Amino acid sequence: MADQGRKFAPLTIEEQGSVAVGGTVLTTPGTYDNNNPTAVGQTFHGDHLYAFYQIPQDSKALPIVMLHGAYQSARSWETTPDGREGFQTIFLRRGYPVYLVDQPRRGRAGNSTVATTVEPTPFDQLFFDQFRLGKWPDYFDNVQFDRKPETLDQFLRSVTPNTGPFDAGMISDAMAALFDKTGPAILFSHSQAGGPGWLTAIKSTNVKGIVAFEPGSGFIFPESELPEEMPSAAGSLKPEAVPLADFERLTGIPIIIYYGDNFPVEPTKERGQDNWRVRLAMARLWVEAINKHGGDAQLVHLPDIDIRGNTHFLMSDLNNIEIADQVSKFLSDKKLD
Amino acid sequence: MADQGRKFAPLTIEEQGSVAVGGTVLTTPGTYDNNNPTAVGQTFHGDHLYAFYQIPQDSKALPIVMLHGAYQSARSWETTPDGREGFQTIFLRRGYPVYLVDQPRRGRAGNSTVATTVEPTPFDQLFFDQFRLGKWPDYFDNVQFDRKPETLDQFLRSVTPNTGPFDAGMISDAMAALFDKTGPAILFSHSQAGGPGWLTAIKSTNVKGIVAFEPGSGFIFPESELPEEMPSAAGSLKPEAVPLADFERLTGIPIIIYYGDNFPVEPTKERGQDNWRVRLAMARLWVEAINKHGGDAQLVHLPDIDIRGNTHFLMSDLNNIEIADQVSKFLSDKKLD
Repeated sequence: MADQGRKFAPLTIEEQGSVAVGGTVLTTPGTYDNNNPTAVGQTFHGDHLYAFYQIPQDSKALPIVMLHGAYQSARSWETTPDGREGFQTIFLRRGYPVYLVDQPRRGRAGNSTVATTVEPTPFDQLFFDQFRLGKWPDYFDNVQFDRKPETLDQFLRSVTPNTGPFDAGMISDAMAALFDKTGPAILFSHSQAGGPGWLTAIKSTNVKGIVAFEPGSGFIFPESELPEEMPSAAGSLKPEAVPLADFERLTGIPIIIYYGDNFPVEPTKERGQDNWRVRLAMARLWVEAINKHGGDAQLVHLPDIDIRGNTHFLMSDLNNIEIADQVSKFLSDKKLD
Repeated sequence: MADQGRKFAPLTIEEQGSVAVGGTVLTTPGTYDNNNPTAVGQTFHGDHLYAFYQIPQDSKALPIVMLHGAYQSARSWETTPDGREGFQTIFLRRGYPVYLVDQPRRGRAGNSTVATTVEPTPFDQLFFDQFRLGKWPDYFDNVQFDRKPETLDQFLRSVTPNTGPFDAGMISDAMAALFDKTGPAILFSHSQAGGPGWLTAIKSTNVKGIVAFEPGSGFIFPESELPEEMPSAAGSLKPEAVPLADFERLTGIPIIIYYGDNFPVEPTKERGQDNWRVRLAMARLWVEAINKHGGDAQLVHLPDIDIRGNTHFLMSDLNNIEIADQVSKFLSDKKLD
């Protein structure tokens, strides 16, 4: 670890720490017997999120709150699998306060009010394909992912399980409570966090902009404008209905969505890739709908601007500085910096 | 959060990041079918630890590796429940590189090779008693714990469950692998981490000193010198046998153990307190055994040096700067700084 980051100037951190936000309390009726403890009369705190934050010296006004995707934690935004700086430290260097979230029922926010079973389900090869490193066991020729075995090992060890059922409404409740604490801030979402991200912006006017990296589910549309679901080799992608008034709350903030490379143009049997063909298509309809309602959304398919080889993990790919530069330009264009 | 730490000078961080260390890989036999994925031919990476590290500018030679206790994560060492800086940032300010660990099957290292069920077991009142905040619902008169309800809420939300069975051998294997990466370093352990901490020092000569905060279990003795188990109102505390050669590996490094306040002197029916009476007694026998074999161990029961009111969480109590000063003096006395 001693060789990482040394080429950079030191970080000057004004303040850092962590906090639990949101959540609920379960209470078992009765009177607690201190010297014969049972569930009776005891409480349980759960369904909160956990956030670690760092505020650099002379920081910009708007913090960035980063929310991970499925099977991941705040780890997604830290050191890259090949040991370079991730978006946490890159955006600290660019002057933004950064909040890294473990969503409710994940990572350090593991206390769930609903029980679940955690099993060692072998998904490594599915992840390799679905996160577009390549088609197992082969990497895509242009993939922006280091080929050293230890890099793949680190990538696969960033996976961590749900400790309770995924609940986008609950996650966005806790996220909205976090934005109450941060004040006006920018939201970065990755993959499965796309959906909870939109819901957070509906629930909190402190969300001043959204940068969504490869949103994979939770595409919400007005009830009366729901597009057809989209079948793919990885299953059918269903849009989700919300009241028009909620949808229109997303039209007041700048939103940008990024997708990487190696998406098929036509339907294909290649499950890992076809999964993303429909997500990109649905995201295009979503951006159209936001803008039709007077919003300010854009979608950048990176190969269209000649940025090639990106996996599902844009923030930790070999060219993540180039991706960060794209994001910085967006934040600057929208006066969010 | 904006009011925390502002009274301090900024931190200058040379390098920060995170890494997964140790662990194993499960493999399901067969050939993976990319377009009809099942368990067949897939692998699962689990049982690694997760560590977040920060290296301050002009740092001291020996990093500090901090390992949390039961139901906790690295969160234990971060911001205190009442919002002050914890040992992570306090010891960074004192010039030590700091590594915060989520042990295998906990927090961000949630992938377990053994399945488990996670349930919302209500333990808040038991924790209040057992972590010696007081006797629920009353705080001890002298307790070094802020009485604001939101402080207790933060404290209880630092709890996060096991995502697999606790395994001291597996945890210490991963910890020894971490010390291989850090090089010579100091180990801080809390509560249940006491046992895995001793085992880590047996497995890695890079452990140059141990500061154990309220070790609660895993007291290891030479097979031929096993003391009697010690009954208490919270159950019987059993010492654990290891080969003499392993035990003697602990006699080459300085070790200090700290315990806080509100321990009963005589056996009592008060379960939360009596639990610690026997742990303190067993720790005294353990220190005697280490020193009898030529080691350098000491036990500090804080009330004996007139430091009063400490809970089980010495590192985040209201007087945690005073506790940190005690630790700094030990590290200085033992040339570990």
